[in-house]
Amino acid sequence: MKLIECVPNFSEGKNRSVVDSIVSEIASVHDVKILDVELDANHNRSVVSFTSPPEVAVEAAFRGIRKAAELIDMDSHKGEHPRFGASDVIPFIPVSDVSLKECVELARELGKRVGEEINIPVFLYSDAATTESRKNLEDIRNRNFQYEQIRVEIGKGQYVPDFGPLEVSKAGVSIIGARNFLVAYNVNLHSQNMEIGKKIAKALRAKDGGLAFVKALAFYLEDKKCVQISMNLTNFKKTPIYRAYEMVKLEASRYGIEIMESEVIGLVPLEAIVESSRFFLRMNGFKSNQIFETRVWE
Amino acid sequence: MKLIECVPNFSEGKNRSVVDSIVSEIASVHDVKILDVELDANHNRSVVSFTSPPEVAVEAAFRGIRKAAELIDMDSHKGEHPRFGASDVIPFIPVSDVSLKECVELARELGKRVGEEINIPVFLYSDAATTESRKNLEDIRNRNFQYEQIRVEIGKGQYVPDFGPLEVSKAGVSIIGARNFLVAYNVNLHSQNMEIGKKIAKALRAKDGGLAFVKALAFYLEDKKCVQISMNLTNFKKTPIYRAYEMVKLEASRYGIEIMESEVIGLVPLEAIVESSRFFLRMNGFKSNQIFETRVWE
Repeated sequence: MKLIECVPNFSEGKNRSVVDSIVSEIASVHDVKILDVELDANHNRSVVSFTSPPEVAVEAAFRGIRKAAELIDMDSHKGEHPRFGASDVIPFIPVSDVSLKECVELARELGKRVGEEINIPVFLYSDAATTESRKNLEDIRNRNFQYEQIRVEIGKGQYVPDFGPLEVSKAGVSIIGARNFLVAYNVNLHSQNMEIGKKIAKALRAKDGGLAFVKALAFYLEDKKCVQISMNLTNFKKTPIYRAYEMVKLEASRYGIEIMESEVIGLVPLEAIVESSRFFLRMNGFKSNQIFETRVWE
Repeated sequence: MKLIECVPNFSEGKNRSVVDSIVSEIASVHDVKILDVELDANHNRSVVSFTSPPEVAVEAAFRGIRKAAELIDMDSHKGEHPRFGASDVIPFIPVSDVSLKECVELARELGKRVGEEINIPVFLYSDAATTESRKNLEDIRNRNFQYEQIRVEIGKGQYVPDFGPLEVSKAGVSIIGARNFLVAYNVNLHSQNMEIGKKIAKALRAKDGGLAFVKALAFYLEDKKCVQISMNLTNFKKTPIYRAYEMVKLEASRYGIEIMESEVIGLVPLEAIVESSRFFLRMNGFKSNQIFETRVWE
């Protein structure tokens, strides 16, 4: 079953009825399922997570953005979190049987519609970015360059949007993109030695010679009195969970340290769990659609 | 999500329109999903597999049985497979968040309705059996004691049904019950030595001192030129896949033999795969509802 996640961030974190109206618009598209709605009053920002087949994802996000443009006035918006627009950041994320490339296409399709149909300037970011300088969100919109600044700078130099007009209305500017699903994965060690913990984390992370799609840090857990290797797996298909686990085990073994336990924080795509079972059970031919529940839900 | 499987067997394996009519009745219940329909002309028998939440399972099975009683005349039925009635055997199987005990209750509820509302005698079997002698299907209905015999013997001695009348119409008798999900699991070894294969299979099976819910046999695979330990896991919750795998590995190790690969044949409940990942990744706190797809389908 083809499935994407979309996590639009809206610049309203206090007035629940505004957020509810936006969410209702998104949910009005058939086959869209709202997973989570979080309002943050200090940030004055809400984060909505929904999932759907890719075919209807653009329409659902579009309806949410259109409603946010109606209801949110950036001229009167205040909040701690940097923001560009009423619909601030909208990433598409592949979950099941969908490639990142397909999500990039969704981002561009949505950007085009938002620019042309509701006259909001759109910057494409992350894997949907059209230039290297827009890969990282922080290079586009940050504490020192937000709605108030882009209003003035839009269209000048590096501030030409990918879609939409060269002027900014009260709905502001939207940043639309695609990125991989991020698996938050921790391994706790039978050790209290943070020196060793830091060495293991270093051995794991991509930038220090570890696994290509791993970000890793070591923490000391006061409650469990143990060292934790806390990881973000930024591409679970290319660097699977089991490989991160086994690599921690290997690096810990040089100090005679055992793994106590591991944990996934939050959600994880089915395929990531199945791939671990395939590895450990040498069950290389196993297909996800052999799982009973997938037959019910296909 | 609560989910059961039901696998009714009907005494019609040639006339597809009859089977289609029965299946349509089953599928007419909301939230029922037909997984498989297989017709066997020699057996003159069809096996339907459907899944649903437990709340609607009895109604769906009931509609199928009622339609089969209308369309199938056991007086003119011929086929190789032993059979008692138009709806011959109907087991309920727990898949997800449902206990075997709940499936036993479904079987009894269905039995009562079939007996009282459509006047078909019902024998409860397997885990729903009310007496030890009805635990095994073969002890109730077999090659030498089928529709023709039960027609005469119904109500006499051991042949008093659990529900329904003491006489048999052209719809015959139905055998209704509950059993655990059966996982068909094979482990292939880097060995061609069948003597050793048989010893490993013996060490695995319950009746010879192995794992409590494992049936095991050794086979030689001509195509792969290797020994296969072929298992049925009759209670994957109590004897999980990983334990069967690790036990084969352990017993094989005394002969210096490595596992080549393993395979699940057919379908397997999600929980069985998740439990393997929990074990190998020491991810003991992991919950199935952390799997993204389960949120979509809940």
